[in-house]
Amino acid sequence: MVFALRTGGAAAPLYQQIRDGLRAEVMDGALPAGSRLPSSRQLARDLGVSRITVVNAYAELEAEGLVESRGGAGTFVLAPWEVAEVRAQRRPRATQPRWQAELAAHRRPQRARALREDARRAADAAFISFARARGDARPFPVEEFRRTLAAALEHDRPACLEYEAAEGYPPLRDAVAGYLRQLGVDAAADDVVITAGAQQAIDLLARVIVRPGDRVVVEEPTYPGALDAFESAGARLVPVAVDREGMRTDLLRRALEAGARLVYTVPTFHNPTGAVMSAQRRHELVALAHELGVPVVEDDYLREVRFGSPVPPPLAAFDQHGNVVHVGSFSKSLLPTLRLGYVVVRGPLREQLVALKRVADAGSSALLQRALHGFLRSGVLHRHWKRASRLYRRRQAALVAAMRRHFPAGARWTAAAGGVLMWVRVPDGVSVDALWEEAIGHGVGFAPGSAFFVEPADQPFIRLNFAALDDEQIERGVATIGRLMAQRLAARPIAS
Amino acid sequence: MVFALRTGGAAAPLYQQIRDGLRAEVMDGALPAGSRLPSSRQLARDLGVSRITVVNAYAELEAEGLVESRGGAGTFVLAPWEVAEVRAQRRPRATQPRWQAELAAHRRPQRARALREDARRAADAAFISFARARGDARPFPVEEFRRTLAAALEHDRPACLEYEAAEGYPPLRDAVAGYLRQLGVDAAADDVVITAGAQQAIDLLARVIVRPGDRVVVEEPTYPGALDAFESAGARLVPVAVDREGMRTDLLRRALEAGARLVYTVPTFHNPTGAVMSAQRRHELVALAHELGVPVVEDDYLREVRFGSPVPPPLAAFDQHGNVVHVGSFSKSLLPTLRLGYVVVRGPLREQLVALKRVADAGSSALLQRALHGFLRSGVLHRHWKRASRLYRRRQAALVAAMRRHFPAGARWTAAAGGVLMWVRVPDGVSVDALWEEAIGHGVGFAPGSAFFVEPADQPFIRLNFAALDDEQIERGVATIGRLMAQRLAARPIAS
Repeated sequence: MVFALRTGGAAAPLYQQIRDGLRAEVMDGALPAGSRLPSSRQLARDLGVSRITVVNAYAELEAEGLVESRGGAGTFVLAPWEVAEVRAQRRPRATQPRWQAELAAHRRPQRARALREDARRAADAAFISFARARGDARPFPVEEFRRTLAAALEHDRPACLEYEAAEGYPPLRDAVAGYLRQLGVDAAADDVVITAGAQQAIDLLARVIVRPGDRVVVEEPTYPGALDAFESAGARLVPVAVDREGMRTDLLRRALEAGARLVYTVPTFHNPTGAVMSAQRRHELVALAHELGVPVVEDDYLREVRFGSPVPPPLAAFDQHGNVVHVGSFSKSLLPTLRLGYVVVRGPLREQLVALKRVADAGSSALLQRALHGFLRSGVLHRHWKRASRLYRRRQAALVAAMRRHFPAGARWTAAAGGVLMWVRVPDGVSVDALWEEAIGHGVGFAPGSAFFVEPADQPFIRLNFAALDDEQIERGVATIGRLMAQRLAARPIAS
Repeated sequence: MVFALRTGGAAAPLYQQIRDGLRAEVMDGALPAGSRLPSSRQLARDLGVSRITVVNAYAELEAEGLVESRGGAGTFVLAPWEVAEVRAQRRPRATQPRWQAELAAHRRPQRARALREDARRAADAAFISFARARGDARPFPVEEFRRTLAAALEHDRPACLEYEAAEGYPPLRDAVAGYLRQLGVDAAADDVVITAGAQQAIDLLARVIVRPGDRVVVEEPTYPGALDAFESAGARLVPVAVDREGMRTDLLRRALEAGARLVYTVPTFHNPTGAVMSAQRRHELVALAHELGVPVVEDDYLREVRFGSPVPPPLAAFDQHGNVVHVGSFSKSLLPTLRLGYVVVRGPLREQLVALKRVADAGSSALLQRALHGFLRSGVLHRHWKRASRLYRRRQAALVAAMRRHFPAGARWTAAAGGVLMWVRVPDGVSVDALWEEAIGHGVGFAPGSAFFVEPADQPFIRLNFAALDDEQIERGVATIGRLMAQRLAARPIAS
């Protein structure tokens, strides 16, 4: 103890001076970890202060994690990590505070979770998962990706390491706008905002546009991640049926006339059915939106994986009045790990959306945006789309062949003109929720139909991904599902 | 024209058959891009159908982007990109639809924007920006980062390319939990959820916990990105003053007793003041939270950049009842481009938060999570923290020296014990909002005090970042700000 106490008007309270003096000696190494402090009685005598003053100083140091009182043995100097470890071991698990119980009662967005229910099991290499909408990452040009990342780190430092503007990396926005103009969409770089996949674009749009109680019109069935996002914003979901030509525009007018804040649609390779909305329907939908003054969110998540048939331009290309909000993604068609998509927005909607993107995550990764831009510029992306289209088309054929072999009579499907998804109606008498539980137990996952409906009751549909599995997995997985369906049908009571 | 029309009960309408037949010939190459279709009159005669049937078929094909009618010249087959380009050029810019006007009236989160107002200018190498809270990316171990990315791409494929679980990459969650236990925080891997920086953690917590009209207690001044997030969730912000020992816990009780949904605090290297909350205050805050049953969100955004003085353990280490929700980040202390932070959550809060993370962005990048995990495991991160601490401490000293030289009498500050920020009170009579405008014009940016207050009126404070600039930039920038302050003071009317 070498420090001296000061007294008088300007001096700090004595216990603080003692605390600070001891702390300085610990930091200097004059009192190394493991050494024992003098007893409070002894130090009080030495400094000529009351014992409670020293006790208070020691208590502060203990709270800071510098020393620890060990019962009758005295007070010892600790290394910071030491007291911390001791404290963590000592503490009993916290019981749940009151405010947690209230949260338990809140509604939780969980449709999308059904698509991940098998995620843990999917780590098991023997598990066959048809559940998620995704491409196959294996044929991805990983070496070119590595080089693109290395080039950004080499040539665009420090910008590629910093925060990026909330609206996104300008050259990437420009490249996306150029791509969209080729599709007939009237987009400039300033209209493009980069998001963390289409999912974030939908969530931000829901948060900006939808107010609690608003009616939001959706196709039924549709993408669960969008249903979750709109419900999180407080929307009441209004379903409109889908057929092979897409959303039933004949039913849409009535839904819109009852009042709606927005329409959400997946017009191209519709998730989950795979339907492509006809040009006629696109015209009608855009005209209705204009007539009734309702924005339409177009989720164009996977346009570029196509099996030969022509696909109409995006809804946004039919729109001359700024009612269509176009959303796209590189997660399914290129690489989920990029976490990059985009939304085309103008005017107050753009201002609100960029401000909220800043609040949501302060902008997407500068490095990954540069990597994607490199891919777009070099043509690697277009080559990958061609290769993926050929590969997934073959796998779609393998899936159809396997379903013909293994699925019982009464199962029905329509092969889509592109994408990664197959929507299958199961035979009457098969409970999909029960089938799903059983299939998981047999090492096979799929997306149960209920996840895609506004009211999540059991539905006689399953959605199968064919893109991410090889022929042998497709064959084994379909054989398992088919066998379980057949067993369920055989077990039905005759009377039913 | 080689296709034949079918008639009878099951056949499609004639115009659809014509459309489909022509489409097939375009796709086959039988009708290449540039070729002219027969006139509608001619084709109607050839096929023995009415002319309106052919006109309808052509209209559908044009809507699909396969053909284009060129006035009297006829109808021509187009390449898909061709019709799209034509269409985009032809269209007038959309006027703003009605629903956009409503959005313009919504309140927009924009405090954080003040910190980015100079972002465009910051691209200009001559611009000196003190505005943002960030580290210097230049001494970052970029070569080790490149190797870590390459190793993940080489050895962890395809998992590093796929979607990651919404709660984060398990080994990263485990490593973060281990780090937190060393700080005395009772955290297991299952309690850690990976987020897109601390910003996303705060935004998700606001969305889960706060309901419109709820009172949220914040320090004043405080981090604008948190104010924006809580206001976006509908909170009414209740400010509590900060002094050199952190949040004034003596004022906190009254604020909490009036009812509060949560408390938000930055106890360590407080943003913007740099204050470190004392151990005593940490005890008091945690005890109050327990007594009154209010969760406390602890934003521990930059603990590891320290200039020698000891720093108490996180609030969460003082908490035995599960009231403290601990948030951390690697953006400031390591690298913004990772977009990675974390939050320690349990019970219903964890369930709700993970479900909402899935809605918000479907999970953070699998690749960047693996790269960060590599950094944590190899010790590169800890070495970087040491190096950054030494560097930023020198720059803080350079900033203080420059302010002493150039700032007029009456400017006051306290150098923080760590971090990247300096909070400066300007002399009486200097309008910071006016100073800010002028400084931007002279090529220097800083964060105006108003951004950090609940009511964004002009405030006599500026926040300066000292970490991301070299000595020469600090000297020139401070000289400019000092000169502008002095000019404003000299121009004051004597009477004021």
